[in-house]
Amino acid sequence: MPHDSTAPAPRRRLVAVLPGLDAQQQARLTAAAAAQGFEALLFEEDAAALPWLEEAEIVLGQSAALARRSPRLRWFCTPSAGVDHLVREERFRSPDVALTNSSGAYGVTIAEHTVMVILEVLRRQADYAGIVARREWRRDLPVRSIKGSRILLLGTGDIGRETALRLRAFGPARLTGVSRRGLDPDGLFDRAVPVEMLDSLLPETDILIISLPGTPQTRRLLDADRLARLPEGALLVNVGRGSVLDQQALAAELCAGRLCAALDVFETEPIPPADPLWVCPNLLITPHVAGNMTLPYTRERILSLFLEDFENYCAGRPLRRRVDPRRGY
Amino acid sequence: MPHDSTAPAPRRRLVAVLPGLDAQQQARLTAAAAAQGFEALLFEEDAAALPWLEEAEIVLGQSAALARRSPRLRWFCTPSAGVDHLVREERFRSPDVALTNSSGAYGVTIAEHTVMVILEVLRRQADYAGIVARREWRRDLPVRSIKGSRILLLGTGDIGRETALRLRAFGPARLTGVSRRGLDPDGLFDRAVPVEMLDSLLPETDILIISLPGTPQTRRLLDADRLARLPEGALLVNVGRGSVLDQQALAAELCAGRLCAALDVFETEPIPPADPLWVCPNLLITPHVAGNMTLPYTRERILSLFLEDFENYCAGRPLRRRVDPRRGY
Repeated sequence: MPHDSTAPAPRRRLVAVLPGLDAQQQARLTAAAAAQGFEALLFEEDAAALPWLEEAEIVLGQSAALARRSPRLRWFCTPSAGVDHLVREERFRSPDVALTNSSGAYGVTIAEHTVMVILEVLRRQADYAGIVARREWRRDLPVRSIKGSRILLLGTGDIGRETALRLRAFGPARLTGVSRRGLDPDGLFDRAVPVEMLDSLLPETDILIISLPGTPQTRRLLDADRLARLPEGALLVNVGRGSVLDQQALAAELCAGRLCAALDVFETEPIPPADPLWVCPNLLITPHVAGNMTLPYTRERILSLFLEDFENYCAGRPLRRRVDPRRGY
Repeated sequence: MPHDSTAPAPRRRLVAVLPGLDAQQQARLTAAAAAQGFEALLFEEDAAALPWLEEAEIVLGQSAALARRSPRLRWFCTPSAGVDHLVREERFRSPDVALTNSSGAYGVTIAEHTVMVILEVLRRQADYAGIVARREWRRDLPVRSIKGSRILLLGTGDIGRETALRLRAFGPARLTGVSRRGLDPDGLFDRAVPVEMLDSLLPETDILIISLPGTPQTRRLLDADRLARLPEGALLVNVGRGSVLDQQALAAELCAGRLCAALDVFETEPIPPADPLWVCPNLLITPHVAGNMTLPYTRERILSLFLEDFENYCAGRPLRRRVDPRRGY
């Protein structure tokens, strides 16, 4: 066939695996892609997308299985905030592939989860659920309040900030933000301190909220020694990564009745069937749902954040949510 | 015995039935009474107090059983906010007995309860608790958010205001306060309207929070017609009094899957053993615990409010928390 200079250039391909987008959101993504000469292929699950990855220049998807298929891949965007599963090993064929995350999409939903589980534990809601299930009528369980509690947020990113914003309205005694650099540009915390001060803060903490990413630096940050520094009755909430704490050491504290906890993330997920954690007392387990994408607002944010960086990508500007693989977030 | 002018005057008696006061709080109450020439007798339960009521001038207690014993009674203060059990019938020997409540002691704990149950329902926490109890790992239940929700608070007293203050931080689309007079002196609501406008507001309500007292005027305010005005999927929370809504009509809506609800108060308490409400779908039941006194902060507030009015009483000033028995709050 003779060369035809009017034939369209081979279309660049964007493959997106993002379950639950509504028709309008799908149309927005497709139109934004088309406007830049991209063909957007949308899928609800990885398996359906795999045959189409060979030609993909951009992938929007969660699974590491999507990352190594395409020799043409230049940008991989995960709808997650955490990228530990993508940076742990060499996931991409080329080190030049840009990796972005969707940090900023989960603060709202994880903050709502965090406030909920704090109140459920303080107000003995699991015990009351049992009382109601047995059709009993008992009202005398001692409860506690967020009001007057000393709260420490370990992690002051989007999740920590949205959580602090909500907890503020409950009248805590003090909100302390702990992060690598100890900064608080928005003034959301009563004090913001660097992580080196953690040891001295733990003994004066009633509620500890962990929203740290899973990196070599955060691994087992909450070890047995640090858990032992928390005062009797303290509540620990983990909505970051399970690797951040020593799960066995925490289980020992919970079994001893010295601490209580609400965990949404674990060292191994799903929790193995025979793991004693399933029957650990003083523990509220949720199956990694604090930040999942079943909330429409979260899906909308993921799409908006992606389209913002898609504009940047097409214009040759730096990607705003690019992850530093060595740092891990 | 000859009259001795230096003998102490017969001491006036204050009887308090308030479980869970700590030693310091007991000492505060006793000392405040003594400073005004009162003997304070403190009890953990009604039965222990009954023999001591004959001489009581002041009673601080919850039960109507405490109200008719003393011919000398001049002031009855209930540690509850609700007084429906005390004004329903003629509970006191004399119509001149002043009745006060502890409105203002429960806003914090009931607001925490309300935020908790809203999040539990929106985030399908009962379903996830079942998943975890079966050691399953499922994360795909559709959830909803307070963010962007249209919230209507029916009742803008202490409870409604403390609840609005907390919900504001979650980014609702709109907070509407509905009360008898439609006032909002503290600017806590996006709009404050009188109860006559309720019918027109219900169709645009995602979350309806009821904190009304139980009075003849509020009885069955939420009848079948008004419940039918709520949109599909709306969440109703009742932390006021069970009499405010038509429980059977609500149960029909819940069984039909059109509404969901979190109820802490009921037409009959305890809920009778054979009541179908126990197995009603889309319903979170708590056994009237939103505002109970097992929270130390609440006990402290009850004591402080009482001591404030005790000063007023002894100085001959009007009691600040006096209830109008005809109005019922």
